[in-house]
Amino acid sequence: MTPGFSLSAALRMRHFEAWTRATGHRFVRELGDGTLDDRVLARYLVQDYAFVEALATLVGLAVARAPTMAGKRLFARFAAVLTSDENTYFERCFDRLGVPPSERTNPELWPESRQFLDLLREAGEGGYADILSVLLPAEWIYLDWGEAEAASPPPRFEHAEWIALHAGPAFAAFVAGVAREFDAATADLDPAALDRVAARFARMVELEGAFFDASYR
Amino acid sequence: MTPGFSLSAALRMRHFEAWTRATGHRFVRELGDGTLDDRVLARYLVQDYAFVEALATLVGLAVARAPTMAGKRLFARFAAVLTSDENTYFERCFDRLGVPPSERTNPELWPESRQFLDLLREAGEGGYADILSVLLPAEWIYLDWGEAEAASPPPRFEHAEWIALHAGPAFAAFVAGVAREFDAATADLDPAALDRVAARFARMVELEGAFFDASYR
Repeated sequence: MTPGFSLSAALRMRHFEAWTRATGHRFVRELGDGTLDDRVLARYLVQDYAFVEALATLVGLAVARAPTMAGKRLFARFAAVLTSDENTYFERCFDRLGVPPSERTNPELWPESRQFLDLLREAGEGGYADILSVLLPAEWIYLDWGEAEAASPPPRFEHAEWIALHAGPAFAAFVAGVAREFDAATADLDPAALDRVAARFARMVELEGAFFDASYR
Repeated sequence: MTPGFSLSAALRMRHFEAWTRATGHRFVRELGDGTLDDRVLARYLVQDYAFVEALATLVGLAVARAPTMAGKRLFARFAAVLTSDENTYFERCFDRLGVPPSERTNPELWPESRQFLDLLREAGEGGYADILSVLLPAEWIYLDWGEAEAASPPPRFEHAEWIALHAGPAFAAFVAGVAREFDAATADLDPAALDRVAARFARMVELEGAFFDASYR
């Protein structure tokens, strides 16, 4: 990789175009200034909610596979947030936006959502580094746009809470922790495993932008 | 199983002798009245700490394998407690009791501890019901003695905090939740799988008493 940089920093730089396509997407800018169309937000949240459970599964596997108590603690806390605070956010939004019950629990998935689910499932079948190779870009991209939009929060909770969940010192510390775990877990990988990890990281970065695009379709 | 009772209640009753051997053990009575020998407590904590990591691994797998968000939430919160509050308790005790660094991180394991680790590892290779078949008796026995000893806490934190970690409404609600998950997860098991689950439950109940015995050896 790029000499002098950690693998996490090098991969972020290598995919910086796709990265900023996600972090500077129209979706997050409109979320940040409170002008996001309710239909677009509802479409996005319905799909996102459909893989919160798969994400919680993957984070549970991260707790299990982390080789140290510090790593287990990092993901145990995140799993707790993901299954409580974040979960009630979706339910309250669905009520506010009038999303019917069938779409909450059993929506028709976009191709992008199916790719997302496949990527989470694949990563969960691998080792700790494989799991981190998808969790790190997903959470880091959300931190990057969350921090950018958190400076002046929009008035409606549907917008403001989604930003707040992805900004602030606690979430930043979590993402920094995931990056440290990723760099440590990838330090001794052979070239084939490293390629696999780098490819999965790249796919996740691409998917984040594609997922925002699809919300406007 | 016993008609009219849930599987969890039936298994607890079936093994009530071994159960109360653990919950009424000299170890917990002396812990409760503050007369426990420091050497006995140190021996116990060193061994117990040696499988906190394996326990956190198993709880992470429970998060991953739980079929509902409610189940994932239950174990995510427990994993967070296990890797933070409980973890600092051990470190503070080791300092107070003068346990040398080598014994904290790499102790010689008792046969009972190795059996414990084997049981946790085995359970983690199975499904959700297999995981619950060892977590449920382990946590329920601790709740039973914790509640009994919590009424009048002893003065030293080494004793009082270990009791407080295993008593109170939050821990009781957790154990009740694990029992509900266990009963739901075992509802549709075939007889062979049920036998395996019941046998593992029984082994864990036996081990809890044997582990307290070994602390006095």
